[in-house]
Amino acid sequence: MKTRERILQASLQLFNEQGERAVTTNHIAAHLDMSPGNLYYHFRNKQQIIAELFARYEAQVDDYLRVPEGRALTLTDKSAYLESAFHGLWDYRFLLRDLEHLLDCDDQLAERYRAFSRRCVDGARAIYQGLVDAGILHHELTDPDVLAVNSWLLMTGWVSYLCTSVLESGQALTPEQLRRGVYQVLAQEWPLLSDEARPAVAELLKAYHSPLR
Amino acid sequence: MKTRERILQASLQLFNEQGERAVTTNHIAAHLDMSPGNLYYHFRNKQQIIAELFARYEAQVDDYLRVPEGRALTLTDKSAYLESAFHGLWDYRFLLRDLEHLLDCDDQLAERYRAFSRRCVDGARAIYQGLVDAGILHHELTDPDVLAVNSWLLMTGWVSYLCTSVLESGQALTPEQLRRGVYQVLAQEWPLLSDEARPAVAELLKAYHSPLR
Repeated sequence: MKTRERILQASLQLFNEQGERAVTTNHIAAHLDMSPGNLYYHFRNKQQIIAELFARYEAQVDDYLRVPEGRALTLTDKSAYLESAFHGLWDYRFLLRDLEHLLDCDDQLAERYRAFSRRCVDGARAIYQGLVDAGILHHELTDPDVLAVNSWLLMTGWVSYLCTSVLESGQALTPEQLRRGVYQVLAQEWPLLSDEARPAVAELLKAYHSPLR
Repeated sequence: MKTRERILQASLQLFNEQGERAVTTNHIAAHLDMSPGNLYYHFRNKQQIIAELFARYEAQVDDYLRVPEGRALTLTDKSAYLESAFHGLWDYRFLLRDLEHLLDCDDQLAERYRAFSRRCVDGARAIYQGLVDAGILHHELTDPDVLAVNSWLLMTGWVSYLCTSVLESGQALTPEQLRRGVYQVLAQEWPLLSDEARPAVAELLKAYHSPLR
């Protein structure tokens, strides 16, 4: 693996495990048995590493958050969206834990995040509209605008909710707790589902459920 | 007004307007034409001011977020909850803008917030159960657990969503934008409403709606 890539992967791991604030470039270099000078040859500072990790998160979400062309949405698409959303949350959980802080330190990143967030809400709206068009969600009861914004807020706020309200001090996040965030998004759609979609979605709900405390 | 109270009110105003990070105890003292020494006589540091403001926010929310005893919930109660929620958000918006940071700086506050947040989710659950019992929400479609957690996340995440995703850099929050947060909470209940409740809730939705961008 190239040095640049090793630095990115080690940084992501340490940020996720210890929180971005607790990890310096010196920690990252020491973790890799590398001189700080070698690290600085690849990245000017921690901000640049964070920006690069954000770009990967962004690319990952942009890649899955869209409607397939030329065919109707299916329940299989729906479950793929949920699983991708879970992986995005889990793989880059440090980003969402302390987003305001990261954006406060970097105006360019803040600008980029704003555009990304708007694009995601637009993407989510198109997906909900697709689920209405496919007859999976009830067209009279479903408001894709409301669902898109609420789902985005629930997803992006979930890590921070767990950290401030659910975990005891010092406790680490578990994948099961993040899956519960996906459950909360999916559960809001329950009253909107067509009768045919209910059995499959009930199974999905079971698969993502886990107790909160 | 007593000096202690003047300090608290000025701090709240400056934190809300400029963000807590941008405001030091010296700024607060200067704003009040007061010597820093006089301010320190009343509050050891900024953290103590924040903790006191949080205690007021907490008391305000604890005061309204409960089910009336001995009678069924009504739509009037519902609209009072929403209006109180809006005022809590608006009056203490600095707290919710950068919550992780505030809690990161103060372990005691973090512990207190965790208990508060759990209490609020419990309170919201009891209110949603009350709305089901009163026949305002459909008992088969409504899951008070899901609604309680989602509403709490939407409310507490709304300020941060506006700041990271909606406002352009340097733009200030408006009350209308915070009212839209209440709209998002109310709108998720639309498919669950009894036919009798719909006309009144449609009016409420109109009253809280405002464009996002």
